[in-house]
Amino acid sequence: MLTQIGINAKKAERVLMTAPLVSRDAALKEIAAALRENSAYIIGENKKDLEAARENGMSESMLDRLSLDENRIEGVAAAVENIISLPDPLGRVLSGGIRPNGMKIEKVTVPLGVIAVIFEARPNVTVDAAALCLKSGNTVILRGGKEAINSNKAMALVMRQALVKAELPADCIQLIENTSRESATALMKMNGYVDVLIPRGGAGLIRACVENSTVPVIETGTGNCHIYIDKDADADKAVSIVYNAKTSRPSVCNACESLVVHAEIAERILPLIKKALDRKGVVIHGDEKTASIIPGVISATEEDYDKEYLGYEISVKVVSDISEAVDHIMQYSSGHSECIVTENYTSANYFTSNVDAAAVYVNASTRFTDGGEFGFGAEIGISTQKLHARGPLGLPELTTVKYIITGDGQIR
Amino acid sequence: MLTQIGINAKKAERVLMTAPLVSRDAALKEIAAALRENSAYIIGENKKDLEAARENGMSESMLDRLSLDENRIEGVAAAVENIISLPDPLGRVLSGGIRPNGMKIEKVTVPLGVIAVIFEARPNVTVDAAALCLKSGNTVILRGGKEAINSNKAMALVMRQALVKAELPADCIQLIENTSRESATALMKMNGYVDVLIPRGGAGLIRACVENSTVPVIETGTGNCHIYIDKDADADKAVSIVYNAKTSRPSVCNACESLVVHAEIAERILPLIKKALDRKGVVIHGDEKTASIIPGVISATEEDYDKEYLGYEISVKVVSDISEAVDHIMQYSSGHSECIVTENYTSANYFTSNVDAAAVYVNASTRFTDGGEFGFGAEIGISTQKLHARGPLGLPELTTVKYIITGDGQIR
Repeated sequence: MLTQIGINAKKAERVLMTAPLVSRDAALKEIAAALRENSAYIIGENKKDLEAARENGMSESMLDRLSLDENRIEGVAAAVENIISLPDPLGRVLSGGIRPNGMKIEKVTVPLGVIAVIFEARPNVTVDAAALCLKSGNTVILRGGKEAINSNKAMALVMRQALVKAELPADCIQLIENTSRESATALMKMNGYVDVLIPRGGAGLIRACVENSTVPVIETGTGNCHIYIDKDADADKAVSIVYNAKTSRPSVCNACESLVVHAEIAERILPLIKKALDRKGVVIHGDEKTASIIPGVISATEEDYDKEYLGYEISVKVVSDISEAVDHIMQYSSGHSECIVTENYTSANYFTSNVDAAAVYVNASTRFTDGGEFGFGAEIGISTQKLHARGPLGLPELTTVKYIITGDGQIR
Repeated sequence: MLTQIGINAKKAERVLMTAPLVSRDAALKEIAAALRENSAYIIGENKKDLEAARENGMSESMLDRLSLDENRIEGVAAAVENIISLPDPLGRVLSGGIRPNGMKIEKVTVPLGVIAVIFEARPNVTVDAAALCLKSGNTVILRGGKEAINSNKAMALVMRQALVKAELPADCIQLIENTSRESATALMKMNGYVDVLIPRGGAGLIRACVENSTVPVIETGTGNCHIYIDKDADADKAVSIVYNAKTSRPSVCNACESLVVHAEIAERILPLIKKALDRKGVVIHGDEKTASIIPGVISATEEDYDKEYLGYEISVKVVSDISEAVDHIMQYSSGHSECIVTENYTSANYFTSNVDAAAVYVNASTRFTDGGEFGFGAEIGISTQKLHARGPLGLPELTTVKYIITGDGQIR
């Protein structure tokens, strides 16, 4: 069954590959309109998912993420329209020139081909991912979680009808309706049909993809993000950045999970940070020096420093200099976003040169690592690997290149 | 044992990551000098490999590839010096600007980190790969074939001594001395230590890496390259390009393996091509139409169209139009290099838009797909995958990016 989906995707790819921007944008316009027109149908199907989830005892916050209403569908449709407004990532000539023998070489951006996206409960990802792939000329194979299967099927159907209306193959967007673990594993091994696999979800899903996939994977979204408060930090900035990065949305990957504090400023800054974090009831796991400054903190274990809490918890380590801070960060970093708070020019440069991560900040919250905040207009995820793309994945990251060489009979 | 090599590589990476160009180039200069100074030692070790290979019945052409003499070592040293002359791929600001909230974002090129290279018999790859990685700020773990183990050990030792002389860690270049299949498989699973694996060798090695590796792989070098002779082809160009692409060096990945010929020109062009290829005794495997024009050709099977002959053999298919030609090519292409010979503007554009491969040629030999020929100065392989890099891999392809964000207290 999956093989047929692969064949369909490759067939549609041949058409979509050369579809000009007007045609891709027209299809996105049809999709936005169709989502609005069919919102009652989609909400009805979403109700089935919500009922089943409630019966299975899903938590209220998860139920909220799963739920769709008129407002949310309007939001999803508006996001599709926003993608229409973005520039075409295809056909850009990145470099080129005439070789000494007279041949002309151009390096041009082209679609990756077939992108597979494995994701978990949120149904809005279905439309988001499909729209970004369509804009960038890629056909997409979606494999969502079973909790949202009825919602996903409804939205995929609506999008496929819109594609046909826009005279593009319906198979530019396909949904795998089998939500078993086996269907995910099979998708990870579809070499020859799938050009790249993008998992969007928790650490378990990402690890399963890295370990089992034989098609190339872009790892996304694990964020064990640190903030290092240097001895020359401005205290107000430090407190404000830590408070923002930890508490503005603790469940996301760009939230701060760990503090590293220079010993010379620790006594002054830690009580201020503690006071700020107390407003949200953040639990602090600290080393001995932290405990000697903030009485009653829980003792931090190796596991704490390794952990993405994704909640109102934070680990703290006091270091004797910036080099120890960088060593600590490089040991535990997931390569997502790391920050230094300092007024010292040399420390700032040392940190940005020596910390290896997708995003390295000086005096700004790690929460900014996001396609929208970076000005990309949209994102399909945040890459924490080094191959192909790193950081927020916008439309240009969904392309590859082709060298076009034109001659008049050159031989070697 | 491999874990220790991984730890050493990561430790050296921290130093090399911030080593400025003068320091990396100085180390390359030491390496070139040390190779020349120690040529007698290297040639002596190489003799051991040659003797063992002869005892194991290695063919003369393979023995030639394995063999090192003063001239070849001079060539290897000169190649290292050529890499010194190339521009620094690191620290380039690819894009950047000020966000509406006043934060500055820069996207800067940085090393990939630790690159593992698995390769087969040729000992010159040891130095080539190490020098390219060093120039691009990457530490390298080399795993060569057992046939060249003494040569590889000698060259790795000489290079490591040169690194120390240049005040860089010896572990910037490490060789795995265990040449068992197990050591290769273990290297493929060194997540956390190896950032990217580049296999250089035959189709079997590449497949093993794709199937077994959990670290990201860049597939290189499988080339089932086609030349399509359009009905509007210039006959002289067609014959000359086919002859060059097939016979100038048939063992390499950018050699032509298959011809696709428009029916309207087949009767005229095939006898001319046959006559040219006969000069090198090229065996032709053709379909029925080919056989009706060139009597006595071997009947082409499905397997022939799928095959990289890497020798004096070629498959031929006659098609009724350009669309059938593109369909055939897309079915069998390995995504390396594909060529159309035509004087027709629309056909040329149709071909370059609809054929998806690393390099697509109009009226020039596929043999040009090469880092040197493309003007990259050097290459570590030719990528046939779409993720990260496609086509010849030069120094810029051995880098990734880092976003550096500088603010004055911005929060979200």
